Amino acid sequence: MPHPEIYLKKNEDRRLRQGHLWIFSNEIDTKRSVLNDFEPGQLVNILAADDKALGSAYINPHTLICARLLSRKPDLSCSVKFFKKRLNTALQLREQLFGKPYYRLVFGESDGLPGLVVDRFGDVLSVQITTAGIERHKDDLLTALIDLLAPQAIVLKNDNGQRALEGLPLDNEIIYGSLPETMVIEENGCLFRVDIQEGQKTGWFYDHRDSRNRLMQLCKERSVLDLFCYTGAWSIPAAVSGASEVTCVDASENALKLASNNAQLNGVETKMKFVHSDVFDFLKTARQENRHYDIIVLDPPALIKRKKDFKQGYEAYRRLNHLALQILSPNGILVSASCSHHLGRDALHEILRSSARHIDRHLIFFAAGGQGPDHPIHPAIPETDYLKTFFCAVSPSL
Amino acid sequence: MPHPEIYLKKNEDRRLRQGHLWIFSNEIDTKRSVLNDFEPGQLVNILAADDKALGSAYINPHTLICARLLSRKPDLSCSVKFFKKRLNTALQLREQLFGKPYYRLVFGESDGLPGLVVDRFGDVLSVQITTAGIERHKDDLLTALIDLLAPQAIVLKNDNGQRALEGLPLDNEIIYGSLPETMVIEENGCLFRVDIQEGQKTGWFYDHRDSRNRLMQLCKERSVLDLFCYTGAWSIPAAVSGASEVTCVDASENALKLASNNAQLNGVETKMKFVHSDVFDFLKTARQENRHYDIIVLDPPALIKRKKDFKQGYEAYRRLNHLALQILSPNGILVSASCSHHLGRDALHEILRSSARHIDRHLIFFAAGGQGPDHPIHPAIPETDYLKTFFCAVSPSL
Repeated sequence: MPHPEIYLKKNEDRRLRQGHLWIFSNEIDTKRSVLNDFEPGQLVNILAADDKALGSAYINPHTLICARLLSRKPDLSCSVKFFKKRLNTALQLREQLFGKPYYRLVFGESDGLPGLVVDRFGDVLSVQITTAGIERHKDDLLTALIDLLAPQAIVLKNDNGQRALEGLPLDNEIIYGSLPETMVIEENGCLFRVDIQEGQKTGWFYDHRDSRNRLMQLCKERSVLDLFCYTGAWSIPAAVSGASEVTCVDASENALKLASNNAQLNGVETKMKFVHSDVFDFLKTARQENRHYDIIVLDPPALIKRKKDFKQGYEAYRRLNHLALQILSPNGILVSASCSHHLGRDALHEILRSSARHIDRHLIFFAAGGQGPDHPIHPAIPETDYLKTFFCAVSPSL
Repeated sequence: MPHPEIYLKKNEDRRLRQGHLWIFSNEIDTKRSVLNDFEPGQLVNILAADDKALGSAYINPHTLICARLLSRKPDLSCSVKFFKKRLNTALQLREQLFGKPYYRLVFGESDGLPGLVVDRFGDVLSVQITTAGIERHKDDLLTALIDLLAPQAIVLKNDNGQRALEGLPLDNEIIYGSLPETMVIEENGCLFRVDIQEGQKTGWFYDHRDSRNRLMQLCKERSVLDLFCYTGAWSIPAAVSGASEVTCVDASENALKLASNNAQLNGVETKMKFVHSDVFDFLKTARQENRHYDIIVLDPPALIKRKKDFKQGYEAYRRLNHLALQILSPNGILVSASCSHHLGRDALHEILRSSARHIDRHLIFFAAGGQGPDHPIHPAIPETDYLKTFFCAVSPSL
């Protein structure tokens, strides 16, 4: 049976033709297509104002992004076979990229599966469904995952706030198999205990893998400061790769406990210090006491969650980078990251340029990175590009 | 003795205050400072219109960029001690970054030494001086290099066209020591014969090191096509890292001979093919004959040398990328690079996005890189950022 049709207004097919997959509710020709006739997650065919077919999408009449394209062909069947094909393409790329099964297997739109994230922790899959479209076809998705990967367990980590906007319940359940008592993953040769059910997002952030690998090439005999250390994903590799000492700072006692456990797991606890403190307070005290660090990692949580928070968030990033530069050793390295989509690469670049000038230091970027290769960027979808990291060598003023 | 003074026009100190090091001739207040009173390469103090000191620079009254700042302090002595200090900072960073002495030691403005490039090939240094300012202080520079690194030989590779603009002769001489009969360098564990005196630029391009390293992680059992192969800097690592076969294309027989020699040096000549052809012709024939490659490396020489060549050069990049995508295997990888400063990252991004849409393929960037860490970028000097590489995974249309 052919899908029902949704017509766009004139010229509103342009973004789709350029490669984007989203359709906003105000782009629908509501005279020809009554949105409320549709159920959340239902499959539809999208047509341009001139009746040309643009492909198949799933729809949600209640959301701002009211449809996401799944295929350039009409009448797509969102079946086990469909999911297997998409998952297989994603899997092939990851297998070409990584020697071991620890990676983000599906990164939404970039892998042709809008609304879906799947992280692979060895035999365990952590799945995040953020749209009604994927939710509606969940059973076929799970069958495809089980057929393809024969996992020991699949966890639905559906506690993301975006689900509320889609009218979906928040939950967090082991939907298949059973979790091992403790789960350890490997990244750049370091081990980390992962608690999928208690952890943030899918349980682990693979996205900084390449940048952490780069950090490991720099740490030998250096003192390292890891701000907002969380589970120690930067500080453990620093210690493992030969840092003389590593100081971890976080405002959460629970985070420090996780980091400390991971330090023990890697046998590097003796050269690591765990400081329970607000990061701003820590930086100000360190400056007053004239303490310095050879390498500082500044990877705060997203400080700009919504566009309207930009000004305040920008100022927080600026102050953090400024303070960090002030307690850096004379020929030190600052690793400065931002995962806020709203703080673009250019904005962080500008914060670093101006802060260095302000305190009269010579700062150069010897590397600039972003998401690891298991978080590919779709060239027509800027929203898939969110992570930026600058590696700055900072010497005295010219 | 204090340096003579050069006054800028009102507001023309802004770029310098932001961190840039260049002064254009039309920014000089020629009522207060007569440019023709100065000798090429002479040291001067730069002052803003309000008489505030901005630092020391060397000057060339005959060039568009008529002065480059060397220091934020006035009356800098461009002595052996000065060069040693700058070289030492640059060296420290490279030693932190690399285990072996094969790297760009000095990258001009980014290392606080505008007009100077120094590449290190083990015990041999290849030095490129592009401004009258450095030329005038060459002896102190060479003394500093010898004191610091005790090289076996220093080659002045002064055959760059920019020297003519500065009124400097083009030459190419062994200014210190003697060159070994054959010189072999190492990059990512691969060996390459380097001919400093006959080769392009300083003799070797270290700038793609990180991207070539990434390529090596992808090639196992894949067929690889290297377009514009030159000395085999991409194709040798592809073969060494396990490609099933590697096809090298270049319009220069001499380049193919160098690549073939390097293949032998690394023991991978049996799985490499060397095709003497214009790259456009090769691509068109391959498309006609329906040949496909799993991985294609497209790293052309700079096709846009001057701003006015943009339109024609852009079209050449577009056609090359378009053709390459057409002969890529169904789940293939395109590594697309550009070293033209005038073709920005955004322009190459757009070429790849639109070409993929045009032939209806799903293209994602799983990595985007630039210059290796021995070519650092100065955040206030966009001219130091010239190299971009996109790693594209290309699958059938959604």
